[in-house]
Amino acid sequence: MRILGIDSSGLVASAAVVDDEVLLGEFTTDYKKTHSTTLMPMLDELIRMLGIDLKSIDAIATAAGPGSFTGLRIGAATVKGLAYALGIPVIAVPTVDAIAYGLYGSKRLICPLMDARRQQAYSGLYRFDETNEFIVKKEQAPEAIEDIINRINAEDEPVTFLGDGVPVFRDYIERNAKVDYDFAPPFASRQRAGTVASLGRKYFDREYYTSAEEFRPDYLRQSQAERERAEKAGANA
Amino acid sequence: MRILGIDSSGLVASAAVVDDEVLLGEFTTDYKKTHSTTLMPMLDELIRMLGIDLKSIDAIATAAGPGSFTGLRIGAATVKGLAYALGIPVIAVPTVDAIAYGLYGSKRLICPLMDARRQQAYSGLYRFDETNEFIVKKEQAPEAIEDIINRINAEDEPVTFLGDGVPVFRDYIERNAKVDYDFAPPFASRQRAGTVASLGRKYFDREYYTSAEEFRPDYLRQSQAERERAEKAGANA
Repeated sequence: MRILGIDSSGLVASAAVVDDEVLLGEFTTDYKKTHSTTLMPMLDELIRMLGIDLKSIDAIATAAGPGSFTGLRIGAATVKGLAYALGIPVIAVPTVDAIAYGLYGSKRLICPLMDARRQQAYSGLYRFDETNEFIVKKEQAPEAIEDIINRINAEDEPVTFLGDGVPVFRDYIERNAKVDYDFAPPFASRQRAGTVASLGRKYFDREYYTSAEEFRPDYLRQSQAERERAEKAGANA
Repeated sequence: MRILGIDSSGLVASAAVVDDEVLLGEFTTDYKKTHSTTLMPMLDELIRMLGIDLKSIDAIATAAGPGSFTGLRIGAATVKGLAYALGIPVIAVPTVDAIAYGLYGSKRLICPLMDARRQQAYSGLYRFDETNEFIVKKEQAPEAIEDIINRINAEDEPVTFLGDGVPVFRDYIERNAKVDYDFAPPFASRQRAGTVASLGRKYFDREYYTSAEEFRPDYLRQSQAERERAEKAGANA
């Protein structure tokens, strides 16, 4: 089974093709440019370089949220268009889960941190058990960094932090973490479409997928515009 | 510090740019085409998509062997040309080490297997210690699969296998391994230039690098042509 993976949930734009046990190809960038100008050209270049037919893709796995609103919308539009045109299902993979899954087989607790502004991160808590099964200890959610680190300290276990929240919250972690911790190295610290596609395959096997029409990104919280409108409505009430 | 990573040691062709803590971009393919037609176009596309200047690269880290002779030669020629033109050093990263390093933080022993034909694999044995320091337990070398699995059984510890030798030796492993084992998922099971660049950075910090002129790939054993010539010479002696 051949799965196209897409992740445009954060600063990273990434596309990958996974064919059963093999990552056929992956193209990832994490540098300044907006996803609207990178995602489709990268995908096109990847498919062209592999010399495969888009019609050979059986499903699309995408980082379905949380993440940046613009990034998720561009990803969702791209994925829905492709899946609709190809007549194939969409596998919605929780963004934070896919980031954690990248640390396959880790001996430590895994705590992804995606910067969500205002001293918050999209985070969750994960581990690989003795047989390297992937365990979601705490589901992804937006949370104050204070609460995240308090929970880590309560777990009293070594932990690896990763994600684009690391540079943002590094100082806070260094001042407040009371357990052994480290930060994932560059190649394993951000979103990758290869992990999205690999985790997507597991979801597909559990029949956890949807149609192009039904797929919606999962923002997990209101956009800034929605928040401001709600606050204004509250103030005017 | 900005490092360009290159890996063309096996079936995979991969280029990546790592900027201190961040993987700026990575382009990897593992599908049929020969490296002579993929490596430079992929590198060019990566640099173009990132919109960075090649002159901003401070060093080139490359999977220096073992691997396929043709792949290593194409990689070496590319790396030497680039490093010479840019006037920057080359960091020679042992191929098998870089594959193992991709399983950052693994709780298990790590045993990469690169198919070396004739029931042999380029392999080694690695672990991440309690603080997630990368430990080379046994240096990379070509070895009979029988000897590799015997050593694994003697270690009597759970192990993760990875690399393009996995599909080749899976049956042998399933019949002969006496410890708990698993196989790395697709996104972590092959060469990646991102791991080469990340490990390369560690070597650079230890001043383990060379000039474009001095750099040589490390084949670890004779090519088929050399072997046949030596055998013929022996037969004629």
